Amino acid sequence: MNKVGRFDNAKKEYIIENMYPRRPLKNFLWNEGLIVDLNQFGFGLSKACIDKVFRPLIYDCRIVYVRDDETGEFYDANRNFQEKDFELFQTHVGMGYHTVESKYKGLYASFTVLVPEKDFVEMHRIVLKNESEKPKNFSVYTYVNPYINVTEHQAYTRAKYDTDLCGLYYAHRADQCKQEYVDVFYSANEKANGYAMSRDAFCGTYGNVENPQALKQKNLPCDTAIFEPCYIGSLQFDVSLAPNETKELYFAVGTCRNYEETSVLAKKYANKTAFDCEMEKQFALSENYAKTCLIETEDEYLDTMANLWLKRQMSLGKTWGRVYGKGFRDVLQDITGFVSLDKPLARERLLYTLKHQFINGNAIRMFDPILDYPYQDMPAWIAPTVLAYLKESGDFSVLNEQVGYYDDERKESVFTHVKRGMDYLFNTQGKRGLSLWGGGDWNDSLDACGLQMKGESVWLSIATMNCSRDYIEILENAPVENKAELIADTKAKREKLKSAILEHGFENGYFLYGFTDWDEKVGAKGNEEGEIFLNPQTWAVMSDILPDVEKGKVMDMVENRLKCDYGYVLQDPPFKTASDHLGRASYFEQGVYENASVYNHGVMFKVVADCCIGRGDNAWNTLKINRYDNPKNPDSGVEPYAVSNMYFGPSAVSKKGYAPLSWITGSAGWMYRAIVEYLLGVHPDFNGLKLKPCLPTSWKGAKVERLFRGVKYSIEYIPADENRLVVDGKEMAGNVVPVYEKGSEHKVIYYYAKKV
Amino acid sequence: MNKVGRFDNAKKEYIIENMYPRRPLKNFLWNEGLIVDLNQFGFGLSKACIDKVFRPLIYDCRIVYVRDDETGEFYDANRNFQEKDFELFQTHVGMGYHTVESKYKGLYASFTVLVPEKDFVEMHRIVLKNESEKPKNFSVYTYVNPYINVTEHQAYTRAKYDTDLCGLYYAHRADQCKQEYVDVFYSANEKANGYAMSRDAFCGTYGNVENPQALKQKNLPCDTAIFEPCYIGSLQFDVSLAPNETKELYFAVGTCRNYEETSVLAKKYANKTAFDCEMEKQFALSENYAKTCLIETEDEYLDTMANLWLKRQMSLGKTWGRVYGKGFRDVLQDITGFVSLDKPLARERLLYTLKHQFINGNAIRMFDPILDYPYQDMPAWIAPTVLAYLKESGDFSVLNEQVGYYDDERKESVFTHVKRGMDYLFNTQGKRGLSLWGGGDWNDSLDACGLQMKGESVWLSIATMNCSRDYIEILENAPVENKAELIADTKAKREKLKSAILEHGFENGYFLYGFTDWDEKVGAKGNEEGEIFLNPQTWAVMSDILPDVEKGKVMDMVENRLKCDYGYVLQDPPFKTASDHLGRASYFEQGVYENASVYNHGVMFKVVADCCIGRGDNAWNTLKINRYDNPKNPDSGVEPYAVSNMYFGPSAVSKKGYAPLSWITGSAGWMYRAIVEYLLGVHPDFNGLKLKPCLPTSWKGAKVERLFRGVKYSIEYIPADENRLVVDGKEMAGNVVPVYEKGSEHKVIYYYAKKV
Repeated sequence: MNKVGRFDNAKKEYIIENMYPRRPLKNFLWNEGLIVDLNQFGFGLSKACIDKVFRPLIYDCRIVYVRDDETGEFYDANRNFQEKDFELFQTHVGMGYHTVESKYKGLYASFTVLVPEKDFVEMHRIVLKNESEKPKNFSVYTYVNPYINVTEHQAYTRAKYDTDLCGLYYAHRADQCKQEYVDVFYSANEKANGYAMSRDAFCGTYGNVENPQALKQKNLPCDTAIFEPCYIGSLQFDVSLAPNETKELYFAVGTCRNYEETSVLAKKYANKTAFDCEMEKQFALSENYAKTCLIETEDEYLDTMANLWLKRQMSLGKTWGRVYGKGFRDVLQDITGFVSLDKPLARERLLYTLKHQFINGNAIRMFDPILDYPYQDMPAWIAPTVLAYLKESGDFSVLNEQVGYYDDERKESVFTHVKRGMDYLFNTQGKRGLSLWGGGDWNDSLDACGLQMKGESVWLSIATMNCSRDYIEILENAPVENKAELIADTKAKREKLKSAILEHGFENGYFLYGFTDWDEKVGAKGNEEGEIFLNPQTWAVMSDILPDVEKGKVMDMVENRLKCDYGYVLQDPPFKTASDHLGRASYFEQGVYENASVYNHGVMFKVVADCCIGRGDNAWNTLKINRYDNPKNPDSGVEPYAVSNMYFGPSAVSKKGYAPLSWITGSAGWMYRAIVEYLLGVHPDFNGLKLKPCLPTSWKGAKVERLFRGVKYSIEYIPADENRLVVDGKEMAGNVVPVYEKGSEHKVIYYYAKKV
Repeated sequence: MNKVGRFDNAKKEYIIENMYPRRPLKNFLWNEGLIVDLNQFGFGLSKACIDKVFRPLIYDCRIVYVRDDETGEFYDANRNFQEKDFELFQTHVGMGYHTVESKYKGLYASFTVLVPEKDFVEMHRIVLKNESEKPKNFSVYTYVNPYINVTEHQAYTRAKYDTDLCGLYYAHRADQCKQEYVDVFYSANEKANGYAMSRDAFCGTYGNVENPQALKQKNLPCDTAIFEPCYIGSLQFDVSLAPNETKELYFAVGTCRNYEETSVLAKKYANKTAFDCEMEKQFALSENYAKTCLIETEDEYLDTMANLWLKRQMSLGKTWGRVYGKGFRDVLQDITGFVSLDKPLARERLLYTLKHQFINGNAIRMFDPILDYPYQDMPAWIAPTVLAYLKESGDFSVLNEQVGYYDDERKESVFTHVKRGMDYLFNTQGKRGLSLWGGGDWNDSLDACGLQMKGESVWLSIATMNCSRDYIEILENAPVENKAELIADTKAKREKLKSAILEHGFENGYFLYGFTDWDEKVGAKGNEEGEIFLNPQTWAVMSDILPDVEKGKVMDMVENRLKCDYGYVLQDPPFKTASDHLGRASYFEQGVYENASVYNHGVMFKVVADCCIGRGDNAWNTLKINRYDNPKNPDSGVEPYAVSNMYFGPSAVSKKGYAPLSWITGSAGWMYRAIVEYLLGVHPDFNGLKLKPCLPTSWKGAKVERLFRGVKYSIEYIPADENRLVVDGKEMAGNVVPVYEKGSEHKVIYYYAKKV
């Protein structure tokens, strides 16, 4: 593959060394209210989510220009628009920060972006070091383009340099304005020698950021800016550095409701102390997450991803969903993985998410912002997430937490939420006894199949089987009233549903996707487009509706029909004909999204399914071909340190194998669990860690260090003739390592029977 | 002032010679469905208005690159991003077309944009001429950025080169898409040697239009483009030209509903014949408009504006309102001026506009797109417009045309529309007997004064006086039932309203603006902000509510209190305190819009008011200081050939005198009428042309050639001791030149009594 950089595991960084890869490489920084989407240059949109509405903070640009006093030559240190011959140019993708470093004519410059733990604020640090042998006299100019004209009406904005803020202050005061956050500041830790507040003043009416007119002189205009279509923030600092001397500058950009708030935040964040303190918090956070589980396998990249980067990606998902919005099921799935990293935070996010359930048991597709469409699968993700939380934490009190609904005044216990979800799934069935398809399920692009509430989804029926299995596990273990009755009732419904699935949904050795409102089969043999779908097969294999030998045959079908060089396509053949009996999947370009891309979420389901039937080699091979260093897909564009939503399928008319949309995918959480829980087989359970490894036959064992309920388990897997569990030197029966005293550490050896 | 170019009156062009003026200079091209907003480089947004929704066609870029085969050097011929040393670089602002010309290293290139009479299509022509002495081998590359991803979801778009279209074809087929116009084409008159359809493919992932990566080689990639965030259209043509040889290329860009339509339009417009034919139509149109009225005064610039450019600007307004939307009152005012240029079209636009009246007599503020807010002044513009149409055309049949309402099924006669408007104005009065202010009147930024329907507007009461005077004139001249009764009733109401205005609205020698819902006076002596407003004074002077001597005093007040170096401010002092008893005017930055800018619409009312009381010198001086060549405001940025919405007032904290928002203003129509009807005093009337000149004392007469009811009147004004009318050599009584036989030509001399 085309090398773009390297991991620095000691610092938990990825260092981008090729600054011009196929596509921009992303990093995300965030707190609960603000998210910053950065590329390798530190460019990108930051936005706050306020009352379910996004409010951009910075549109795109964060630039550090340097202008030499003697020659007048200028360049920008973090983007290098002018393609100067930099001596150093690289980016440190950090966990919670982002640093672009460069060196030109002996001047080292670094630019770091950081998001503090709270507030709608970005923090920036610039470090300059004279690494030449002569003194240097120059000016530094920053450039950001904050979102100011909130009502789009430029006559409302007043912008000025504010001495007290030590920076720029923009206030957009419009009458009848619904947005509260109309003030923006851009402050520094020291007084600027000049400033500009409009694009025209800095770039020039006919100029641009690549070659700004203002830098043809030393001093910025220091004009007051009114009635500007494009406000910017630029601060000038005149600097003299002796050889080896260093200069640091600190900045904060934020949005507030009024001048008083602005004044507090501008002063709070634009300084070294605050920066160092917030940076320390980020380091501590990623260190804490790392410690929860450290794997050591024969594959260093796998270890790096599981130990560091997938955790970061799940953590993004549990707070920001898919960034463009927080999907109910997306956040739940990420919590399912994230729960092992931070139980209290997982609990908090779980309760917040459940507020968006409807009283009928289903839930809204997306909150923050709201997206409502009659999708039917939301409840299928509730019980599994709650179960994962219970197993990880042992904290049954969560079931009694009172949580509201999106469309009802009532507050009810979390258990009732789970139960309402379960009831919705079992009660919403069609004439075949299968789950009604409605506006879609996991596959939210098959969004027209069942809008009349007649079509039925086989996949959703299988998901209901999995969900109800988890529900029963909750019932069996939690202190719940009417337990026996509920279990019996659920089991009876499961039997009925299982029969319906096998009767109507299983043909020619594999599972259909479903039946449309018009009784057409989707994903059935003989269909010219979409004859076989991946997810019904893998989910059936994860479920208990088939005997193992049948599961194996189904997975053989998957290998034969859906595999390509870099993963498994979501269905085959792709749709070529737009159909309003199917929905947008059939309108999508071939090979893209739910029209036969290698959709990584689905690929991770497949890895789990492999492990469910003991096919560790297949699982491992799938993980390998799916990653950035697959020689058969050498330039997909994906960040080595992040999982993307998809690779364009082989049927794409161009850009086959291309990986857009990294980070914003449920694949990371599922990949994490696929690796730790399924491949390495460390399953949290109610009464301990259940070990059930499914290692590739080529591996000579593996190690996992796992924090569970406050206990540190150092687990070593050693291949052997039969399964044997040895804890702290003592042989134990079964494969469950018990929960020991909080704070204790235990050495676990699990000898696993190697397949021949 | 800073010279930006020159007029070429023979060609009806303005030639921009300084391509880097203070701000971009605009030109508009349009038909009934599409409007193109161009700057001097030919860049700018084009958009269609379809079912009251705007659909962009081209976002911004229209670029012609040239790349030399031998050296590989490339540049763009119409923007000159790279600041090459062009031998020629200028723009012809044409009426209905726009041409950018350049010459570099002996290669002449021109790029012309044209909008055909119909269809959502832009037409482009490129002419290349080798003006050097050696053969030239080069490639030409076009670049446009059309709006393609209609639903914002890039997975729906399929783009390809289509041989049959001889160009690029983009189809965005999304399910559940409300927009019908989802196909876009970019076709040429000959087969391209290469093409690109995505920004990335042309500019490069890290490149830009200033320095596109693709031009580092000769040939464009010819890739199929899918899943692109930014589709573009670029076509490559390899050209060899001997010395003096010329090459022409023709293009069309448009949007359609499907491939069949696309195929028809792409072929229809992308060729020389179509281009020449549409160009001819544009020439004919502007020639026809020019002929309707030609003035000849001592001021050549005044003549150019009145004879050519104001007509063009009114014509824009009568179709596209203020471009961001078609305001009911804006379109009506422009029709009032435009009616002398094209009576049938004025009639058609009048009827279309009246469809947006409510059944209660008021009307929606803006249609196409809809803007609804309880403004109260809409009906005040109906009678004056209808009266102007009747006087210009003599066509009373319009009064019987049946027209619908915006909020009612009924269709009623135009006369009933007029009457309902009049009734609304008289019936919507408050406790003082003045007009209720509601959400605002002409001053739509005093939008909070009367929302509770208690506050009263003095200005609107005066406007009602003017409107009802016109209404009575219609009643007196048109064949209307119950004429006498209606006239008597209206006169009685006028007397009552006049008394109320004088009792409550006239204090300390000038008129208030009004009373808020909280009984506060606006525009009253002693108010710290907004003590006196311009419009109530000027409109009172235009009305018949004061004797002439009092009018003179009011206008003296205007001169003393509101004049600045480049016009008259809308009020004084400006608002400094945001007030929810006033509305957004008080939220606006000082000196901007309705917060004390030199709002040109108001300045033109003032010119008319001057003429109403015979102050030709003041009128003329106002016109002079208000224009682009005022040495006291030498670099306002305004196009010499267009009127802008405003100049920033002297109270603006920066950019005093700056002129944003040109073209999109009712000032053009009012300036046209101020010049032709008031200063030069050629008033169309029911039974002829009424002459009532109000020339500046310094002038030695003037000439007006006027087409009226199919008759050509060559009018000459000669200063004299007393007024005398001589037509075709014969002395006539009075000052009304009668309507003669259609097609006849008449020489009119009017000796006017010069003031001392």
